Amino acid sequence: FMSKLPNVGTTIFSVMSALAAQHKAINLSQGFPDFDCDEQLKRMVSEAMEEGYNQYAPMPGIMPLREVIAGKIYSLYGQQVHPDTEITITPGGTYAIFTAIATCIGPGDEVIIFEPAYDSYIPNVLVNGGVPVLISLSYPDYTIDWSLVRSKITPRTKMIMINTPHNPTASMLSAADLEELQKIVKEYNLLVLSDEVYEHLVFDGAQHLSILKYPELFKNSFVTFSFGKVFHNTGWKMGYCVAPAHLMTEYRKVHQYLCFSVNTPMQFGLSRYLQTPEHYLSLPAFYQEKRDYFLELMKDSRFTPLPSKGSYFQLMRYDRISDEGDKEFTTRITKEFGVASIPVSAFYENGKDDHVVRFCFAKKNETLELAAERLRKI
Amino acid sequence: FMSKLPNVGTTIFSVMSALAAQHKAINLSQGFPDFDCDEQLKRMVSEAMEEGYNQYAPMPGIMPLREVIAGKIYSLYGQQVHPDTEITITPGGTYAIFTAIATCIGPGDEVIIFEPAYDSYIPNVLVNGGVPVLISLSYPDYTIDWSLVRSKITPRTKMIMINTPHNPTASMLSAADLEELQKIVKEYNLLVLSDEVYEHLVFDGAQHLSILKYPELFKNSFVTFSFGKVFHNTGWKMGYCVAPAHLMTEYRKVHQYLCFSVNTPMQFGLSRYLQTPEHYLSLPAFYQEKRDYFLELMKDSRFTPLPSKGSYFQLMRYDRISDEGDKEFTTRITKEFGVASIPVSAFYENGKDDHVVRFCFAKKNETLELAAERLRKI
Ligand SMILES: CSCCC(=O)C(=O)O
Ligand SMILES: CSCCC(=O)C(=O)O
Repeated sequence: FMSKLPNVGTTIFSVMSALAAQHKAINLSQGFPDFDCDEQLKRMVSEAMEEGYNQYAPMPGIMPLREVIAGKIYSLYGQQVHPDTEITITPGGTYAIFTAIATCIGPGDEVIIFEPAYDSYIPNVLVNGGVPVLISLSYPDYTIDWSLVRSKITPRTKMIMINTPHNPTASMLSAADLEELQKIVKEYNLLVLSDEVYEHLVFDGAQHLSILKYPELFKNSFVTFSFGKVFHNTGWKMGYCVAPAHLMTEYRKVHQYLCFSVNTPMQFGLSRYLQTPEHYLSLPAFYQEKRDYFLELMKDSRFTPLPSKGSYFQLMRYDRISDEGDKEFTTRITKEFGVASIPVSAFYENGKDDHVVRFCFAKKNETLELAAERLRKI
Repeated sequence: FMSKLPNVGTTIFSVMSALAAQHKAINLSQGFPDFDCDEQLKRMVSEAMEEGYNQYAPMPGIMPLREVIAGKIYSLYGQQVHPDTEITITPGGTYAIFTAIATCIGPGDEVIIFEPAYDSYIPNVLVNGGVPVLISLSYPDYTIDWSLVRSKITPRTKMIMINTPHNPTASMLSAADLEELQKIVKEYNLLVLSDEVYEHLVFDGAQHLSILKYPELFKNSFVTFSFGKVFHNTGWKMGYCVAPAHLMTEYRKVHQYLCFSVNTPMQFGLSRYLQTPEHYLSLPAFYQEKRDYFLELMKDSRFTPLPSKGSYFQLMRYDRISDEGDKEFTTRITKEFGVASIPVSAFYENGKDDHVVRFCFAKKNETLELAAERLRKI
């Protein structure tokens, strides 16, 4: 049979994590913490298993979890979402994104994607027969040129995908961006898929501008979130999608036949843990400290930091000493200096290479120290 | 936007479970046990969380789990599958099936599906732009007429989906069926998707005939399995897909961008629990006893059992006392007699109604007793 993804290889995250393991390098590539999640949260999951919550959850998720999410959304973003019809629990943020695309995108439908882009977006559109329309963020500030967006809209444009805080660039959308997006969405009657998995990882007093702060925009939007990125348990693969009822009805038609429902004891554990807002309200300070510590440690290196406004990530431009591309560079420093990172060109369809690499700073201080010590030797 | 699934409502499993809850009826509808999974297995998951296995698993699954699965397959079915290239862990059996279809099926591709069919199959094909080609199993023995299958094959036929032990009918494919399938697959160069989630739930000394027993057939096949159905923890949503490397390469391209990886601590727990084959080898006797007990209890009812060779399910034909269809009947007995079941017409695209309902007997003996007591009053 014919491959639906002939040009797709193994995701860069698997490639770099495997290379790191093979060379016993410090792994600052794939985005996950090297410290553990809260003992209390693990205990809550164990207790849910003990209490016998081990059979199918309701298809959209258990109600206590959907309710506490609705409460959190209301208190943070002022949007009243209905837990029964507008929230669906998913096995992770990546799944939540795929399902939104599978719900809306069919052969020939165009989806606007900004590059550099998280590497699942384009294949998700392709598998569903859609056409990714790629627009580069400006370099080096990684902002959106909205007049360029307008120029790319055609009668086949169905959806615009946004991601804030942004992976891999650590940039964030501004109020002006969201107002412009709202105008365009209304004018052309488009859908929005907003990937907000790093919602709580924002620095320097910045505010995360969720689609959920814009009621008019929310009417046309799917908004996806992750527990793993927030509670330091990326391996649990738990997330959720929020959408207005008319879109969520269609989303659930796909979800109910894609995986039907999501891990029950983990849903109960998370629903109890979320009762304490401090668990996520403490995150900006926690991760900002990590970012700042990493920057401090890297001060005397050959790497120049780009602004990191949010997410787990710090982009760094490096001084080229040869014609080496960023893929070769990251491979070489993994092997020779023992630190793995992600080449940002991997997030461009055409491999655009600005000699920028992505480091994940969601790591123990000792890890950051050792990594920086090695990186300073380059 | 246009719905991709305009004719799809809420899955019958959610509908009947919700109705059961609303009327406080005994729920013999959706297929899940009302008893708990093994304490030891829960402890193994808690221990894995304690040990800090809470970050991303490798994309295809953790190696210890893939290795123990390969060992189990070899000992049960004699097939040597390679854990590194031929097994992928998934968030449940339903997901494993969807992903195989998303990997291979595009616009216009025809997929042969036997009815009655598990209710995700048809929407899975439709979401991917494919064309379900429906063939009814004979009634009341629910076998395949292979000459009918041949007559339905066209140049667009891509895949045949089979399911053994079969949900909802509890029938099983015979060696003659698999030989016939092998001939057809070879002759027309088709793919097979074999849903074997009930592999260990087979009765009366019967042998489950897995695709994995037929090396020639396996070369063209995806085979999907579930841990939930085997270890009484349907809510954990853990399963896996086995396919030859050339197909698995394509499968993983979709999987890596659909959910990337699967719950890490649950994978570790399961990999340890699977070290003891007794945990699954004891299942045929365990479930056969449940089936026989339920049949015994229902002897003096107005329901006539059809053969149940495997799975969690017992089909029963009922004496019609009016024109009532099976959907109305199951709704009525849920409300009036307090026992929920599944109308088998829900598994036919055209609603074919043979006045047969499906009972799940994966329940505590007390539950079966109380349910039968109520059903005998009809
Ligand atoms: C799903 S693996 C990738 C984790 C991640 O979000 C990243 O590294 O960008
Ligand atoms: C995924 S919910 C349905 C469970 C099941 O397999 C069934 O009841 O047939």
